[in-house]
Amino acid sequence: MLKGKTPSESSSESTEIVLPNDTNTLGNLMGGRLLHWMDIIAAVACQRHCGRIVVTASVNNVSFGQPIKLGNVVTLYSKVSRAFTTSMEVFIEVWVEDTFSGEKVKCNEAIYTFVAVDQMGNPIYVPPITPVTESEIARFDGALRRRQLSLILAGKMKPEEATELKALFMA
Amino acid sequence: MLKGKTPSESSSESTEIVLPNDTNTLGNLMGGRLLHWMDIIAAVACQRHCGRIVVTASVNNVSFGQPIKLGNVVTLYSKVSRAFTTSMEVFIEVWVEDTFSGEKVKCNEAIYTFVAVDQMGNPIYVPPITPVTESEIARFDGALRRRQLSLILAGKMKPEEATELKALFMA
Amino acid sequence: MLKGKTPSESSSESTEIVLPNDTNTLGNLMGGRLLHWMDIIAAVACQRHCGRIVVTASVNNVSFGQPIKLGNVVTLYSKVSRAFTTSMEVFIEVWVEDTFSGEKVKCNEAIYTFVAVDQMGNPIYVPPITPVTESEIARFDGALRRRQLSLILAGKMKPEEATELKALFMA
Amino acid sequence: MLKGKTPSESSSESTEIVLPNDTNTLGNLMGGRLLHWMDIIAAVACQRHCGRIVVTASVNNVSFGQPIKLGNVVTLYSKVSRAFTTSMEVFIEVWVEDTFSGEKVKCNEAIYTFVAVDQMGNPIYVPPITPVTESEIARFDGALRRRQLSLILAGKMKPEEATELKALFMA
Amino acid sequence: MLKGKTPSESSSESTEIVLPNDTNTLGNLMGGRLLHWMDIIAAVACQRHCGRIVVTASVNNVSFGQPIKLGNVVTLYSKVSRAFTTSMEVFIEVWVEDTFSGEKVKCNEAIYTFVAVDQMGNPIYVPPITPVTESEIARFDGALRRRQLSLILAGKMKPEEATELKALFMA
Amino acid sequence: MLKGKTPSESSSESTEIVLPNDTNTLGNLMGGRLLHWMDIIAAVACQRHCGRIVVTASVNNVSFGQPIKLGNVVTLYSKVSRAFTTSMEVFIEVWVEDTFSGEKVKCNEAIYTFVAVDQMGNPIYVPPITPVTESEIARFDGALRRRQLSLILAGKMKPEEATELKALFMA
Repeated sequence: MLKGKTPSESSSESTEIVLPNDTNTLGNLMGGRLLHWMDIIAAVACQRHCGRIVVTASVNNVSFGQPIKLGNVVTLYSKVSRAFTTSMEVFIEVWVEDTFSGEKVKCNEAIYTFVAVDQMGNPIYVPPITPVTESEIARFDGALRRRQLSLILAGKMKPEEATELKALFMA
Repeated sequence: MLKGKTPSESSSESTEIVLPNDTNTLGNLMGGRLLHWMDIIAAVACQRHCGRIVVTASVNNVSFGQPIKLGNVVTLYSKVSRAFTTSMEVFIEVWVEDTFSGEKVKCNEAIYTFVAVDQMGNPIYVPPITPVTESEIARFDGALRRRQLSLILAGKMKPEEATELKALFMA
Repeated sequence: MLKGKTPSESSSESTEIVLPNDTNTLGNLMGGRLLHWMDIIAAVACQRHCGRIVVTASVNNVSFGQPIKLGNVVTLYSKVSRAFTTSMEVFIEVWVEDTFSGEKVKCNEAIYTFVAVDQMGNPIYVPPITPVTESEIARFDGALRRRQLSLILAGKMKPEEATELKALFMA
Repeated sequence: MLKGKTPSESSSESTEIVLPNDTNTLGNLMGGRLLHWMDIIAAVACQRHCGRIVVTASVNNVSFGQPIKLGNVVTLYSKVSRAFTTSMEVFIEVWVEDTFSGEKVKCNEAIYTFVAVDQMGNPIYVPPITPVTESEIARFDGALRRRQLSLILAGKMKPEEATELKALFMA
Repeated sequence: MLKGKTPSESSSESTEIVLPNDTNTLGNLMGGRLLHWMDIIAAVACQRHCGRIVVTASVNNVSFGQPIKLGNVVTLYSKVSRAFTTSMEVFIEVWVEDTFSGEKVKCNEAIYTFVAVDQMGNPIYVPPITPVTESEIARFDGALRRRQLSLILAGKMKPEEATELKALFMA
Repeated sequence: MLKGKTPSESSSESTEIVLPNDTNTLGNLMGGRLLHWMDIIAAVACQRHCGRIVVTASVNNVSFGQPIKLGNVVTLYSKVSRAFTTSMEVFIEVWVEDTFSGEKVKCNEAIYTFVAVDQMGNPIYVPPITPVTESEIARFDGALRRRQLSLILAGKMKPEEATELKALFMA
């Protein structure tokens, strides 16, 4: 059996400056560019967790908050929240800082899922994960509900079989 | 009141060739690049619907199917499925075709939400939409459930208030 | 013999948003960027016609009309107009739409020629084409004149041998 | 009246290395990328001639010769061949050199036309040009024929009015 | 007087995946791309130190060690080492990690200098810096020697005036 | 023994237009972009000298002078100044010209070092160089001092062994 790891062993960070081509006509960062940046830093966290090439399997709900402006410094943090047989769920946080005040604001949070693959592109086992901090445990627990939701939306599970998720609405 | 439109009036199409920088070390299109392309063509459909600048509000569940290879021709289709007060839900389909056989395969489907904004970035009313075909009606009906789900996941609605969604799990 | 096809079977469409890096200091789309976009969508139409890798053989006369502005949505349409032994002539139309009024204006038309090649880069036969609509027939007929002109300009044909073209000036 | 200049005063040169994203699936430079590079260096020559912002007006016949490979060093030379009232015709030559032997081969020649504009984008007078070398004189003389051809193809001149061009076919 | 800060308050990190367009024909990261990445993360550290827009003033000696391969994950760390009146010296370290073993190797170290500017581009005072760790103190002390060297190389100081540097060769 | 060459045989030139994505929030060319452009044209000069693939070995002192603005035409010139066993020192000059006046100003000068490598990436002999003009001879003579400085800074030579450099401070 593969050795387990902690979420912080996969922790990754990237910093980007918003350039003109990243912005729309209002001078704000375009959503598509941010989705692309989040995908890259999420993939790095997953590769650090499993030591394998990884491919994006799904993007779970992403909400865009306040606009990010041209010239802003954007920092992205990613960390694997749970490992399944061959897939990993990863959280990404996006922070923007003001050049003059140095103040940092979290403006975006997203969840992606990746699959580890071998050189032929076939899925391959990933090591289990052991959450340590309180927030890591909460994310680990929520991952199963999100996975059921994802399977239902993809038509691969019936709503009545999603016991974890069902409880949420029955409460 | 703003005049209603049909989904096909917003219908948009784009074609991309997968270049080396769009691929991972397996020679397959990276998920982040596709998320970016989908964001652009989805924004075009929304702008065609409302005649306004639009900004990405959220990305709903996106699943990645079979890998798309270097050199492949990728066609993206987008169409607004439902309009709310200031936001629009839009469906994106991604098709890949084989150069030699000409065969086309749908390899991805996604749902994004956009908000119409004025020059100051403030939300602004969008015209209602009237679905026409059977699939347009099905997507229109499902949009409300997806919206409730999105609000719950963003912590802006309590699960027990999501009557549409709740029915799904109670059935 | 290879089976003939209609021009509309090769019909291709792409949509681009003009970003800051695509513009000159007046904020207008640079000609070179548009030439690049036209080359890609023209290549897609030719690949759809012949099911082969294609390479640009020549660019025939291209005129640039009204300026296209930063943030504009540009739609490119391409369709093969005539097939010769190993080459294809393809028409590209460029339309710009106004975000607010939705009005579309054709601002550019171009003709490119591509050659179908095998994996070694050697020219290879392409299927014949059968024009259907009136405009397709007019383009098909004009293709021979344009080919003679192209050969003369490349020094591969003498003006007096270009019977089709000569007639134009003798009328 | 504006002071005349020689073609060599506008002479411009650029060097590019062919990168993976510039190539098609055969590993050869894509035509669209070369058209883009030629547009930029041609614009620089025109700006050097007239001291004004210039915009691409038309691309005259361009033929692509031998394929240019990934990693090749490509040198582009441009020089204004003739100035009209507000427009300039410019020749571009493309040379490829072999890294190991150092041998240089001309693999492409193109002619573009640019218009000088003021800050509002309105056409503005350009200085006349005085060809000096034999090849500059030949290009200067041919420019009028090419201009008539361009006007005919754009539907702005009747073939029978193109006296310079007509002579070519009547000889 | 401006309040002093520690070097670690300016500490910045970025992660890049080496893509095809970043590599030469040997499949290794090109030096120019790495110089560009280092410039960006160095600028972020300087902005974090002074809360101002910063511009690159000079690049001090940079040595490239072992080649970095296509697909490698590269992490860049930057930290301000010393502040002068309006300029800051910043150290950048580049680490590469192996996807499969997770092993990290430092493969590059560089020193850049930036100047803080106001909105008009004029130099502006920056806060002093107080080194804390042993390596921060060593870098702080060396900064004066490097600055004298830089001024000599730029012809702005005579070798005999560079007392700090002179001592190095007289020892 | 390999045949010697003159510096001007390696002479290379490139022209770039500063686009929005190349600039910082003040609208000036970012240092990192210029470092990248200088690396490419320097590599071309070295390849022309030795007829081999070359890789960046080090960047020697680079000072940035006056800001270069959006839309400016930038011309880079490079020329090998001295060849060592397997490495070459190359000078790069950066000139900016004003579109309206045509006035050219040198705004940057840099020195890079490259190593010639074979297909496996191993260092390989380069031809010697014979300086011809006065400035070529001065650069050739200075190259040895710069090399010693570079070796000291990289910790590969002790200051007291750098006889050439030592003389500079003892004078």
